[in-house]
Amino acid sequence: MSTSAEGRVYLAMSGYDPADWRRPLETRREVTLAPDGPDDPTIRFAIVWKQLPPALFTLPNLKAIFSAGAGVDHLLANPKLPEVPIVRVVADNLTKHMVEYVCWRVLDHHRQGSTYRAQQPQKIWHEPRQPDASQVSVGIMGLGNLGRACASALLALGFPVNGWTRTETEMEGVRCWHGADGLPGFLATTDVLVVLLPLTAATQGVINYDLLRQLRHDGPLGGPVLINAGRGRLQREADILRALDDGALKEASLDVFETEPLPAESPLWSHHRVFVTPHAAATSWPEHLVPLMLDQMDAFDRGEPLRNVVDRAAGY
Amino acid sequence: MSTSAEGRVYLAMSGYDPADWRRPLETRREVTLAPDGPDDPTIRFAIVWKQLPPALFTLPNLKAIFSAGAGVDHLLANPKLPEVPIVRVVADNLTKHMVEYVCWRVLDHHRQGSTYRAQQPQKIWHEPRQPDASQVSVGIMGLGNLGRACASALLALGFPVNGWTRTETEMEGVRCWHGADGLPGFLATTDVLVVLLPLTAATQGVINYDLLRQLRHDGPLGGPVLINAGRGRLQREADILRALDDGALKEASLDVFETEPLPAESPLWSHHRVFVTPHAAATSWPEHLVPLMLDQMDAFDRGEPLRNVVDRAAGY
Repeated sequence: MSTSAEGRVYLAMSGYDPADWRRPLETRREVTLAPDGPDDPTIRFAIVWKQLPPALFTLPNLKAIFSAGAGVDHLLANPKLPEVPIVRVVADNLTKHMVEYVCWRVLDHHRQGSTYRAQQPQKIWHEPRQPDASQVSVGIMGLGNLGRACASALLALGFPVNGWTRTETEMEGVRCWHGADGLPGFLATTDVLVVLLPLTAATQGVINYDLLRQLRHDGPLGGPVLINAGRGRLQREADILRALDDGALKEASLDVFETEPLPAESPLWSHHRVFVTPHAAATSWPEHLVPLMLDQMDAFDRGEPLRNVVDRAAGY
Repeated sequence: MSTSAEGRVYLAMSGYDPADWRRPLETRREVTLAPDGPDDPTIRFAIVWKQLPPALFTLPNLKAIFSAGAGVDHLLANPKLPEVPIVRVVADNLTKHMVEYVCWRVLDHHRQGSTYRAQQPQKIWHEPRQPDASQVSVGIMGLGNLGRACASALLALGFPVNGWTRTETEMEGVRCWHGADGLPGFLATTDVLVVLLPLTAATQGVINYDLLRQLRHDGPLGGPVLINAGRGRLQREADILRALDDGALKEASLDVFETEPLPAESPLWSHHRVFVTPHAAATSWPEHLVPLMLDQMDAFDRGEPLRNVVDRAAGY
């Protein structure tokens, strides 16, 4: 094991195989695997996901915590979280995967994939009227790194794009709305709603029946579509099912769920207008993320500021 | 009926409702519907699709024939075709629809849509390893207007793009191959084959078993994929089925077929690794195409040259 940098890394990756993360880390730093290592003064950085081990709270020389995913709600929800900077993942690779997922799902709804998949086993040769992308408005809730990258790709494909954010923001080519006052106008002009919000106290359950029923209903797709690639607890699944069943919502592509893995008893699994993926829109692969984290640690050791630090007050 | 321009238009649209074409045409020119109008000296232009009526061959003052679709094989195959310029459709709208279709199908294969659709009814929460777009090479056969537009969009999504053309061509960012000599290299480095060739004597049946078995087999998708959005008679469907069944081909998205509509007895309808659409990738809608044709007729009457004229010797 050749490690060049001082300062151990504490690795606590619930839900992942830690060996996949340890291997690339150990090319440059020594690693302590949770739950070992309480009070170890040589540990300067932690990389964590989901469950936080008690040892994390008592590390005497911890300088920063790296989240292995773009969302940090799992960290900030813990009142014992040490008062060190939290660094979120911003990886070109993760962003590209999210753009692929969002373009894929928008195109599948726009190009009426479910209609063709229903026709094929019945050997039906029929072309439903296909609107132009220019007639189908995509509304993105959340214009952070991921939302902006998705907006650019959708604009390039010819879709008009609306954006909604908590506080006022702008993006060239995107019609931007913000705050509670901006929400009705944003929804009334949106055919395909793409949710890329962070999960905070303010956003939990925001994708509810009252919001869904405000989406544009006379658009060219024959009803509005929901795509949630953000966090499961942004949505109320009972409300999504109600909206699907009473016609307020035409279809949904859901990558995230209130409980993950999605329980077998959820009616979403078998709803013929819901497409389920297992929180796979943009997965953190260690071989892409670990080098970025190591580079940040090295830069911090040289006295440079950390990038992509979470705003704890805002919650993301 | 107010028509400002001299010179009638002869309309012979088999497979379409001619009323949809007549209506926008009659805002600017008088129209004769096939099979009426043999020998009418006031007819200067024809708009045709598929079946050519005998009257077309004897129009004494015909100046140009407009094809209602991008392909002109149905015209050139007829030995009685008058010796006037044939104008192909080049419409921004058609191009955008083709780009949508190709990006949609490439993303669906790349993002393992068929795996997730098979998992969902079984309530399986499992993420297969997702390669990066940068690892999946898309090869486009045919770099005309449509092929180039698709190549640009796929490059923007992060896919490396190969191009193959009959004669030497170049496109920035695309690894280009040409001719029979270039085909093996093109195929050996292609994971997803997108066919946008014109149908000519030289290209008929080119998508056969010998070609399919040369595609890259050790790529990250677990086998090569075929997307044909060109012409059905470019492909040999028996060979596609053989390649699917012996593992030479992983999946196919077919928008075009040797016989259209696809006959009910075709095994393609029920093959679980084939996605069928009814020649719907980029459909000619008259309200988009007719104004472009009328503008060309007006320009011709002013003495300007016709654009997008077919090269009869090349066959496209």
